[in-house]
Amino acid sequence: MLENISSVKVSDGWHKQYNHNATSTNCSMRFAIFLPPGASESNKVPVLYWLSGLTCTDENFMQKAGAFKKAAELGMAIVAPDTSPRGENVPDEDSYDFGQGAGFYVNATQAPYATHYHMYDYVVNELPRLIEKHFPVTGTKAISGHSMGGHGALMIALKNPQSYVSASAFSPIVNPVNSPWGVKAFTGYLGNDKAVWAQYDSCELMRQAKQSDYLPMLASQGDADNFLEEQLKPEKLINVAKEKNYPLSFEMQAGYDHSYFFISTFIDQHLSFHHKYLQGE
Amino acid sequence: MLENISSVKVSDGWHKQYNHNATSTNCSMRFAIFLPPGASESNKVPVLYWLSGLTCTDENFMQKAGAFKKAAELGMAIVAPDTSPRGENVPDEDSYDFGQGAGFYVNATQAPYATHYHMYDYVVNELPRLIEKHFPVTGTKAISGHSMGGHGALMIALKNPQSYVSASAFSPIVNPVNSPWGVKAFTGYLGNDKAVWAQYDSCELMRQAKQSDYLPMLASQGDADNFLEEQLKPEKLINVAKEKNYPLSFEMQAGYDHSYFFISTFIDQHLSFHHKYLQGE
Repeated sequence: MLENISSVKVSDGWHKQYNHNATSTNCSMRFAIFLPPGASESNKVPVLYWLSGLTCTDENFMQKAGAFKKAAELGMAIVAPDTSPRGENVPDEDSYDFGQGAGFYVNATQAPYATHYHMYDYVVNELPRLIEKHFPVTGTKAISGHSMGGHGALMIALKNPQSYVSASAFSPIVNPVNSPWGVKAFTGYLGNDKAVWAQYDSCELMRQAKQSDYLPMLASQGDADNFLEEQLKPEKLINVAKEKNYPLSFEMQAGYDHSYFFISTFIDQHLSFHHKYLQGE
Repeated sequence: MLENISSVKVSDGWHKQYNHNATSTNCSMRFAIFLPPGASESNKVPVLYWLSGLTCTDENFMQKAGAFKKAAELGMAIVAPDTSPRGENVPDEDSYDFGQGAGFYVNATQAPYATHYHMYDYVVNELPRLIEKHFPVTGTKAISGHSMGGHGALMIALKNPQSYVSASAFSPIVNPVNSPWGVKAFTGYLGNDKAVWAQYDSCELMRQAKQSDYLPMLASQGDADNFLEEQLKPEKLINVAKEKNYPLSFEMQAGYDHSYFFISTFIDQHLSFHHKYLQGE
């Protein structure tokens, strides 16, 4: 069922890409995995799931983040799914922020998207099951992502606190129900009922979180990010975290923008943050 | 004359792209520069020039090599030119290995390429003069590159041993006069006179080198590189280095291919190698 489409040595480990027929999204999905040196059935490693942003595929992080040296050193696998279902039969739209490349990690309920756009189920359930069946990994998981993928990572961790040991994000959309990107996507995928939207909104989910479900959370944001004020609004999440005493470490980084140059600068810090909890299990 | 087209903070330094009207290539040229933190008129830094391979622009290395953390730490600027002249008026061909994106770092003598394809002059003379005029850098230079750019780096260093303190390459075309890529390019740019070709062939140049002109040289090659046997032929250069007692450190790396995953794995080693000599001046 898994079709290997590339296998390249990097930082003494391996970067591999696969296609598989996904049931949750009802189409062929590509993902990439980095396996650190020494990972084997007798030496299983924990996994960091990385969710990418708008327009990305499994490749952006793997090619541009510069994460492998540190991940190899820490003995951590990294799995990067695509950002949406893909293919000729998958409905799309001529914009970068909706449709293919912009799945927003929700389960769509609206036609014509409900048939394929179930990225939430794919990332939370189907993909980890597949990874744990076919690769030398433990069941211990952390999750991170960028922008739309930062929304995905925080939201998924908040909804599934038993499934992840830690969560982090770069430049996340923390309050999609109040962000133009999020409003467009949630309207298209989920319809007009804002009670449904709230189920995928990190601020709302953190507001509802029980203290026993708190997870270590790290978020990094550049203050020269063009999307900061209109789309990202991190102060919304910071405020909820303060109210709730949620263990969010939020770091505003002077001069950095929304690009992978920002991610590459701080990815080692995020990997080390997750490593602390991945090893603790 | 210099048009700044991007400026992004990375690893506490800056990645910037510029356009300028180049006289050697008779067209507008784009290049990228990484400036490490603290570089200023009162704290000038040395420069590593990076020459990319076929189909690349200034962006491939800057986005995929993961070099900035180490370059920032070492206080080294990195300059990446494009791989050829570009533009509507620049002659091209429908192949990836000749014409735009494939300048081969020579001065073309053949019509219609002679008007623009003077990448040798551009890299050796025009670009460093521009960089040293407009940026806080010293005149101390090292040079490196990948594949076609590995050929460029070694060849340019061998022809200009007074201009560089060290040279290195990943997966270089060391003997283009005996490589299908090189034969095609040299025929098109330089005509049929193989005595002219030899002036751009690293094996031939090393064979002619005077001991007083020897430079520290490092080359890394993956043994799972698809182009190894037909195009790259590193044993040709290794043999000349042995005959001449040339200070070439050649490292064959097991399992690595021709991609940027290979470069990202060993770029820190190359930067440290150059740093040793850049600091010595």
